[in-house]
Parts: sequence; C-alpha cells; structure tokens
Amino acid sequence: MRNDDRRKRVVVSGVAPEVDGGRYAVKRIVGEDVVVTADLIGDGHDLVTGDVLWRKAGRRKWNRVRLEALGNDAYRATFPVPGIGAYEFTVQGWIDAFGSWRRDLEKRVDANQDVAVDLLIGAALVREAAERAKGVGKRGLEKYAAQLEGEGDIEDRVEAALSDHLKATMDAWPDLEHAVTHDVVQPVRVDRRRAGFSAWYEMFPRSTSTKPGRHGTFRDAAKRLDYIADLGFDVVYLPPIHPIGKTLRKGPNNNPDGESGAVGSPWAIGAKEGGHDAIHPELGTMKDFKTFLAAAKKLGMEVALDLALQCAPDHPWVGEHPDWFRRRPDGSVQYAENPPKKYEDIVPLHFGGSRPDAMWSALYRIVKHWIDAGVRIFRVDNPHTKPFVFWEWLIAKIRKTDPDVLFLAEAFTRPKIMAHLGKVGFTQSYTYFTWRNSAWEFEQYLTELTTTASREFFRPNFWTNTPDILAEHLVKGGPAAFAMRTVLATTLSGNWGMYGPAFELMENVPVQEGSEEYLDSEKYEIRHWDLDAEPNVKDLIRTMNRIRHEHPALQQTNDITFHETTNGELLCYSKRAGDDVVLVVVNMSWAYPHSGFLNLDLHALGLAGGEKFTVRDLLDGATYEWEGERNYVELEPKDQPAHVFVLERS
Amino acid sequence: MRNDDRRKRVVVSGVAPEVDGGRYAVKRIVGEDVVVTADLIGDGHDLVTGDVLWRKAGRRKWNRVRLEALGNDAYRATFPVPGIGAYEFTVQGWIDAFGSWRRDLEKRVDANQDVAVDLLIGAALVREAAERAKGVGKRGLEKYAAQLEGEGDIEDRVEAALSDHLKATMDAWPDLEHAVTHDVVQPVRVDRRRAGFSAWYEMFPRSTSTKPGRHGTFRDAAKRLDYIADLGFDVVYLPPIHPIGKTLRKGPNNNPDGESGAVGSPWAIGAKEGGHDAIHPELGTMKDFKTFLAAAKKLGMEVALDLALQCAPDHPWVGEHPDWFRRRPDGSVQYAENPPKKYEDIVPLHFGGSRPDAMWSALYRIVKHWIDAGVRIFRVDNPHTKPFVFWEWLIAKIRKTDPDVLFLAEAFTRPKIMAHLGKVGFTQSYTYFTWRNSAWEFEQYLTELTTTASREFFRPNFWTNTPDILAEHLVKGGPAAFAMRTVLATTLSGNWGMYGPAFELMENVPVQEGSEEYLDSEKYEIRHWDLDAEPNVKDLIRTMNRIRHEHPALQQTNDITFHETTNGELLCYSKRAGDDVVLVVVNMSWAYPHSGFLNLDLHALGLAGGEKFTVRDLLDGATYEWEGERNYVELEPKDQPAHVFVLERS
Repeated sequence: MRNDDRRKRVVVSGVAPEVDGGRYAVKRIVGEDVVVTADLIGDGHDLVTGDVLWRKAGRRKWNRVRLEALGNDAYRATFPVPGIGAYEFTVQGWIDAFGSWRRDLEKRVDANQDVAVDLLIGAALVREAAERAKGVGKRGLEKYAAQLEGEGDIEDRVEAALSDHLKATMDAWPDLEHAVTHDVVQPVRVDRRRAGFSAWYEMFPRSTSTKPGRHGTFRDAAKRLDYIADLGFDVVYLPPIHPIGKTLRKGPNNNPDGESGAVGSPWAIGAKEGGHDAIHPELGTMKDFKTFLAAAKKLGMEVALDLALQCAPDHPWVGEHPDWFRRRPDGSVQYAENPPKKYEDIVPLHFGGSRPDAMWSALYRIVKHWIDAGVRIFRVDNPHTKPFVFWEWLIAKIRKTDPDVLFLAEAFTRPKIMAHLGKVGFTQSYTYFTWRNSAWEFEQYLTELTTTASREFFRPNFWTNTPDILAEHLVKGGPAAFAMRTVLATTLSGNWGMYGPAFELMENVPVQEGSEEYLDSEKYEIRHWDLDAEPNVKDLIRTMNRIRHEHPALQQTNDITFHETTNGELLCYSKRAGDDVVLVVVNMSWAYPHSGFLNLDLHALGLAGGEKFTVRDLLDGATYEWEGERNYVELEPKDQPAHVFVLERS
Repeated sequence: MRNDDRRKRVVVSGVAPEVDGGRYAVKRIVGEDVVVTADLIGDGHDLVTGDVLWRKAGRRKWNRVRLEALGNDAYRATFPVPGIGAYEFTVQGWIDAFGSWRRDLEKRVDANQDVAVDLLIGAALVREAAERAKGVGKRGLEKYAAQLEGEGDIEDRVEAALSDHLKATMDAWPDLEHAVTHDVVQPVRVDRRRAGFSAWYEMFPRSTSTKPGRHGTFRDAAKRLDYIADLGFDVVYLPPIHPIGKTLRKGPNNNPDGESGAVGSPWAIGAKEGGHDAIHPELGTMKDFKTFLAAAKKLGMEVALDLALQCAPDHPWVGEHPDWFRRRPDGSVQYAENPPKKYEDIVPLHFGGSRPDAMWSALYRIVKHWIDAGVRIFRVDNPHTKPFVFWEWLIAKIRKTDPDVLFLAEAFTRPKIMAHLGKVGFTQSYTYFTWRNSAWEFEQYLTELTTTASREFFRPNFWTNTPDILAEHLVKGGPAAFAMRTVLATTLSGNWGMYGPAFELMENVPVQEGSEEYLDSEKYEIRHWDLDAEPNVKDLIRTMNRIRHEHPALQQTNDITFHETTNGELLCYSKRAGDDVVLVVVNMSWAYPHSGFLNLDLHALGLAGGEKFTVRDLLDGATYEWEGERNYVELEPKDQPAHVFVLERS
C-alpha cells in the first residue's frame, strides 16, 4: 500500500444510479437531470464533502458539482444531460478540513474559549488553499490568512474566520490531494425525447390499397398517413418490407398451402429479388419508400422498420454464405423449430458458428443501409433469440455514427432476459402489459418497472395489441375493453403502441376460441379495412394522444403514484412532472359499473392536508369539488371507462 | 471484440452473496456452507447451466459444484468452508447443448416424429464430449456415440440417448470453451466458531483484590476466573493493561484532580514505565499475565485485550516520535478534543501525517507482541477515529500469520461507519442493542441486521452494559430490567457481552440523573465488589449461558423469525438451526404484567398446519399444550421476564 493510499480517509459507497457496477448504462432523456446519491464517510469527527464528476463520454475534463448532505451520511447532487449521446459520472469525496475547523471554532466561540491558537490553525488551512487557488480567489485567501494570523481585534478575526465569503472561497479551492474517487465510472445513455414519449401505430402497407384485394404499395400507404397523424400518432411502424420467400410460403391463417398465389408472411424474409436490404417489389421501389418517409416526416411522424434477422429458405444468403446457417447431418439447412413444432419456411442465422465476424458485419450493414435511407427507428423482432453480445455490439456501433437511432426490443420472454436486452442497449422494450388485467397486477407491475433498478435501463412501451396478440379481454370485453385498454396504455407508460386498423376498428375475432391469433390475420393475407366502420375507438385514441401532448406528466413513465381505493376493481394512479399532475381512475371491469372511495396520497398530488381542490375530467369535461384524501368515484364502463383528471386548486 | 467473445451466449448476474462487487469479504464460520445464488440467462431456447467455482485463497485450482435451477432463471449451489481463513468463489455459466438436445428429443419422440437425423446430431455432441473426456468417461461416451449413430433398433437408440447414465456422463464433461465466468471473484472470510458464538465478561483486574482498597493484580484476577467460568462465559475481556499516564491523570468520577494518588483511567496509555507493549506495574509482570492467560485457558475461556490506539502525554512515543502527533501552532502537542470539550490527558496518534509507514508498522508490532504472548482476541477501542484503510491493512496483515485472531469493533457511531468497519475486516461489532427498547424497535433492528446485506459482513455482539453505558432501562427498571435485558442479549444475538460484576450485581446508579455514566466508575477508581450481594441476576445469566450451549439455534444470529403478537409489549421470536428451534417471548415492560395472543409462523417453527405441539419453558420447566398459530401467553416481570421455549411435538 502506497503512502498516498494510506492517507485516503474517505469511503464512497452506495452510489446510485448504478447498473451492475457500471457495466451497463443508465438511460435518460435529453434535458433531464441525473440525480446522483452516494454515501460518504470518513473516520473521526471531521466533516466529509465531495463532488459528482461528470462529462460527455470522450471528453477529458470532468465537470464538478458539489454534493449536498441529506443526513445519515447520504449525499446528493444533480447534473444535466443536455445532448443526445453518452455521458458518464463518478463520485469523489474528501475530508473537509476547513469546514470541520470552522464548525469547531463556532463551538469554541460559543463556549467563550480562547481561540487565538485555533485562528492560527485556520490561517494555515487558508494559506494552503491560497497555494492552490488562482486569481481573485488566491488574493482573497491570502488576505483572509493574513487577517486570521494578524494582531487585529480577536472578534474581528473570528468574524472573518466564520464569514460566508471565506467559506465559499475555501469551498471553491478544496484540497483534493487525498480525495477518494469511487471505483465505478457509470455510463449514462441519453436519448432523444421520442425514446421516452412516443405513440406507435403498426400497419401493414400491403393492406392500404383502396381497392379490395389489390396489393397495397408505399404510395397507397402514404395516403393513409393523414389518417394516422389525425389520430395523434408519431411513429408509423411497418412489418418487414423486404422480398418475401416463396419456398414453403404460408397461406391465410398460417395454413401450409401458400405456394400458389398466397402473399406470404413479411417475416419470411428473402427471395431471388433480394434480402434484408431489398424492398418487396409489390410494395414499390426504394424511391417510393423514401417518398413515404418524407410524407410521414411532413406530418411530424417517423417511420419505424422491422429488423427481423432470419431468412426464408430462398434468401440470397442461404446460397452465398452456407456457414451462416446450421446444417443437419443429412446436409439440409436447419429450419426454425420449437420442438415438436417446425417452421420450415424460416431458416435462422447461426450465431454459434466459429467465425461470426462476416455475418455480424453484414447485419450491421443492413441496419446502416436503412439508416442511410432515412430510417431512425427499428423495432427488433425476437431479439432474445440472438446473442446479447451481438446486440450490445451492434447498437453501440450504430450509435457511434447515428446516436439518434432508437431500437425497440420485441421480446415477450422471461423477465430477466427482457431486462438484459434493456441493459445491452435497447431504447425501448415491449412488456407484459397485454397480459396484466387486475388493478393489483398493474400496481405490482408498474411498481416493479418504476421503482426497482429496472427504471434505470428498461423503458417500457405498452402495446394494446399486435398482429400476434389479440388478448382475451379484447375478445370478451368488446368496446368497453378497447376503451379501458386505450386509457391504460396511454396513461401508464410514456411510450405506447397499437396495431391498427385492427385496434381502432375493434377487430376481436380469434382464429379459434382461446387463441391469441387474429382470424384472417394480416400476417398471412391482405386485408381491406373500412376506416369509417362503427363502432370504433378512434375518438378516444385521438383524445388520449392529445391529452398526452398537453400534459408533461404523461410524457414519462417513472414518476407514478398509486392511490388506495376501497374497491379492488378501481385502479387509481397519478403522474406528475413539475406542476403538472394527472390523476387517473380506471374501472378494471369492462362489464359492470363500480364505485368506491379513493384514499388519495395528497403529498404525491402536490396538495396540502386540508385543502379543497377541483378535479376536471379531461374526457367529458365534468368537474368535481373535492377535499382531503377520501373522495367518491363511480364509473359505468358502457359510458366511460375511466376518469382522467387534472387538478385545479380552488 | 474477439471471435471468442462473440460466441459467449450466457449472461451471469445477480450473484449473491456479494459485498460491494467483491471488494469486501462475506463472513462465515468454520463448518458452515456458503449458499450461492445467481441468475443465468442465454439467448434463444437452449438450456443454460453452470457451476459455482470455489477455492481456498491462494490455491490455483477451482473446485466446482453444479448449479441447481430454482425457476425464473435463478440458480443455486452450495459449497463448504471447512477451514479458518480466506476462500473465494465465482460463478460460471454455459449453454447446455446436450441437455437442450435431449429435452427436444423427448418432445419429438412424444410427438412420434422421425428422429433418425436428430440422433445423429446428438451423437456428434457425444463425440465432442468424448474428445474432452478421459478414462472410463471417454470410453463410455465413445460407446454411446457409436450406438446413437449405429444401425440398431431406433427405440433402443432413443432409450440410450435419453438414459440417465449418458446424461450424467455428459454433465461430467461439459463444453466450457464458450463458458462465461462472472467478473467478480467474491472473497469469503471464514472464522473460528467463537467469532459467531461467544459470551464476553468485561472486568477490571485492578478491582479483583479481596482486600478493599488494594490494587488488584493478575494473580487476584486469576482467582476470579472460576467465578466467571461458573457463570458460563467464554471470553474475559480486560480494559487496557498498560502503564497509565501520570500527566493530568483523572481522579474519581472523571474529576481533573487525579494527579495525587489517583489510579487513573486505563485508557490513558503510556508512562515512563512503557507504552502499549508494556504492562502496568501494579498489575504485575508479563509472567503474571501469561499465568492469567493459562488459568483462563484451563477453564475453557479466552482473554481479550483492549486495543486503544491513543497515548497519555507521557507515553514514550510522544518524545520518541514527534511526527506521530499533531502539533499546535504554539508548539504544544494536540490533545484530544470534541469541541468545546477538551481531553488533555489523551494525545491522539496523527494518522494524517505525511509518512504513516513507521507508525503503522509500530502499531502492527504492538498487536503482534500480544498475539505472541498468547492473546487471540482484541476489543478495539474507538476504531472509527482511525482510518478505515489502516484497519483493513492491519487486520489482513495479522491474519496472514494468525488467522484465528478475532477483532471486536467498539464503535457506537453512525450506522454506515459501523457497517464499513465490518466490511474492512472486524470480526464482531458492538451494536445499538443498548438503545433499543420497544418490541417494534427490536424487530426492525434485527430485521436490518439479519436480512439485509449487513448479514454478510457485520456480526453483532449485544452488550447489556459497558463501563461507559449504564442504560436508562437499568437505572429505572431495576431487577426486572436486568433480567429482561439478559434474556434479550443472550437469545437475539450469537455473541453477547456484559460488564461485570456491575451487571450481575445490578449496579445502576448514574453519576447524575440522565447520565449513562456509572457513579464511582471503575474507569477512574478501584472498586471492591461483594460477589455474594443480593439481589443479583447471576442465576439467570448462568442459566441463559447454559441454554445457549445446549441449543445450536442460539449459537447464531441470522436465522431468526419474528412472530406477530396481539400486544405490542410482547416481543416474540424464534431461532432455528437444523432441527433445533427455540421460541422466545419477552415482556418488554419491566413494570407491568402483559398478556396476549401469539400469531405463530408455524412454517418457521417447522410445524405443519393443524399439528398439536408442546412448548416447554427452559426457565421454569413449565409446559403448555398448544395447537395452531394462535396461542395465549402472560408474563409478570416480577416473576419472569420471558418464556424461553423449546418445541416438542406431541
């Protein structure tokens, strides 16, 4: 142990936020603050102080912000992350020799002790600081030291010693020689706003033709954009747009009879027309696609592409790169399986091969190809079936050149696998939202997402439905369920999404009873949608998307509070961002009216104890005069699934 | 990223126990098991498996124990720590290719699929394992591979493929080429039994003379040992035994008039007769001390010395090593202070000096000196006023030659500082036990000590009193309070201690009202104790120490369960070690009888739901027939402060 280490008296521990000892980044949104807390202790009775050190990754110089004591040896400081990209921070602590001396001097003065010698001790500390200081600070400290050492009136010298100005100057020139720096440098990934606040609309462009039965094109899809923008969405997500394999192509309702004339599944990627960097000829050309992108942009929307890293048997790679696929002992290419099920129209890329480099680079080039075409958001299909290290490498590599690109992880698998995909870099993640039904399930799930370590690296995106998931509540609950799920998805999570027009038109017939698959699913055939069909949930979607834009409280996920209710069918929660508070009460039953009392956490609502306040329902405009914690609500699902209140002080 | 890293598909995380990312050791007792849990995930649907790797520190070769799946991607394995000293472990995970193949084969067979090609795939895995294997395993695997590949009956080949014997052989020769090893190697500190199970008796040897007023010697103290052993103690702890400073020596009741004839405080260490390696002449010689040690040993007891690293102004070091002490600007040596209080009879060692090496080495030599004299336990005075890095260095250095030496940290300071002293190596720690009074305070405090990270590195020692701490409950509560605190200390913690004969003789007069200082404290004067005085709590102490020796449940701290009671004045808890279960109910009021119902956690007691059982009170021998969770108790503090039950099945 070096002499220098032997003089390090401070211990820094319990630093938060921290993900796996700094191995993975914590995620923030541009303009947010990073609030850092840490425990600092030293031996003896001396005061301890410290800084958070932070910088943009790649910069040499640390910025510093002084820690504030919270009591019980805990400290806190906050730093801003104004730009997209990678930041990092750590914590440094040291003994505050001057602060300790000053505290003791005050006690001695209060006890009327002779402090002449103590003033000399303090003067020495000030002289040492003057050695470190520069400019005005240096001259000021030299002057103070001279006064403390001097022959002046003792009361004047004590007053100078205890002055706020001396303290502030000393604080500006701390003695860092024996400072202790935390051994973790925690990375912070800062994304653009849409990473945390977005509304996704998934649609099949091939179903956008106005002529029933005709294969829709990007030109048809572009005409649909006004409608989607009017509903308030900002991301239009397209299933894979690449040539669809012909070998063993699936027909309607996933029947294995698709060879003759069936359009096939867009996820069976690759044919003689090309692979992942090509466009399905029936959708149009690259030029058409770019026109579509431009049209979306004009309406304030972005286009998300699907990144499904798997191949149809006639994908060009199957012939060109035999070592990218696994072979069976009989020489055939290994198709996808989930034994005893076989998916012979899909051949998975073999990530376990002995030379992954060429394949990884090719996959990178695919992503880069679409980025260069103007795509900035990718929804990644089944990321959990490819190695975590691949995603970590790919996403980091993309971000070096294109830090604004977002990746949504489509994984509905085991919780720890989903969490790890968030850690390795996915910007957003699908969740178990679709399978949560009761009030207590939602409270438990949101508490897990927003109050555990998860909140730092896992950004949920709540989907009401997908082409793969028609949940039981939509099948059985009808219009009231569609409305309830719309309110839940749009208010519980900063990011939400739906697959349309199936959702807004309340499509809810499964391929067979108990199945989560849609009957006549667009995955396997072209659908023609009557966008004016009744009933629909378009007005509520439009309203909720508007409310989200008007209320910062709904533009984030983590600041949420659940409030007790006297009826287990009523879910009550509030979200807050600064002064903006939105209070939501949802009747979790689609069938029956429910009423009960709320037991509001007034502090979380920014209200004082006895205060009267008005709640105004943003859905129907009704207002209620409330007072205190206990307030009555009643919701009839046929009329209105929920209250979405704003608070107005009386 | 290397190709090899690109093929690592498993992620190991959430490893427990772990202290600050492996920076500090977890503590265990010889003969205990270390139970390791970890989360292991891989991409895709393949099975994951892994090992805990463990070894004695310094050994090259890891021992392995296979992880057992607990569900939800959590795994567990256990390894033994049979010897005193340092161990370490980590966790390794890999894809279980054969296990995954075997699982899928079963499904295919169940679905009556043609598995001829699959058997060839499995055969290849077995051939690869045979390459790795040796001896019988190798030959066996080669035989299996030939059979799977062969022309034999398909049912026979499938039976061989799914046989337990093949699985066990494959498990014995895993493919570790792409295994992932957790990046933390967690140290484990294994101490001898007394580290976790001990009963301490603190006494001033100078107060052991049978003649009132005469200074007691080690010879007198040796005669006291039978008495202490009879009470059931195993550690006799002596305040400092070194020459006591004469300069500004304190008199009775800490009055600053001690120069003339006062015996002084043993913590004012050092005089012209010597410093920390010398013996106070009035106590005797080194030979007398060694005789005392031998006498204790003969009775099955150990002697703990006090390590108080501070000096009286006439300590030899003050003259010999001026740079080990801080000087004031007027040239005087800086005495101890807690402004505005001054302790001019003590000069602290200055750990902040620029060349700490010589002083650290001298302090090490002091400790080693007493170890070489036969001392194996040190109670460290005020460790929190010396740098943490010093203790970490000192304790590690001592353990290199003397791994059985124990250190008890005397720190009643801020919780995070106390915790950190445990982390840097102290074997046991004083606690806030003395200041916890109500049932809910105890439940909260023990829950913190035994269920948070603290349980891994902080070993509590519960002291009923010390020469510095005469708690209010003893002052006000009289005999009932002494009895209640005896039961609490002896049953809540594996380690307990008391300062006698003050405690067993129920000394409880403070120097002034509201003070925690004893009147006529032995710290400043010689006391003469009448060991037969009544009332006393000797019988209860003897009984409790005996019960502790008879019940393994009470020989540890962490396995404790609190049970609900219907009366907040009744504290109910059980401790368990294997089949041994002790259930304690304490009336927390020393003044009034209390009764109520217990709501027992039957599972924690090892009982089934409707079972009848008998509880036998080890204090008074009474038995009660109980059934189910709800059982009535009633305690009159004047008769008995608590029930200490053992459970007997009917």
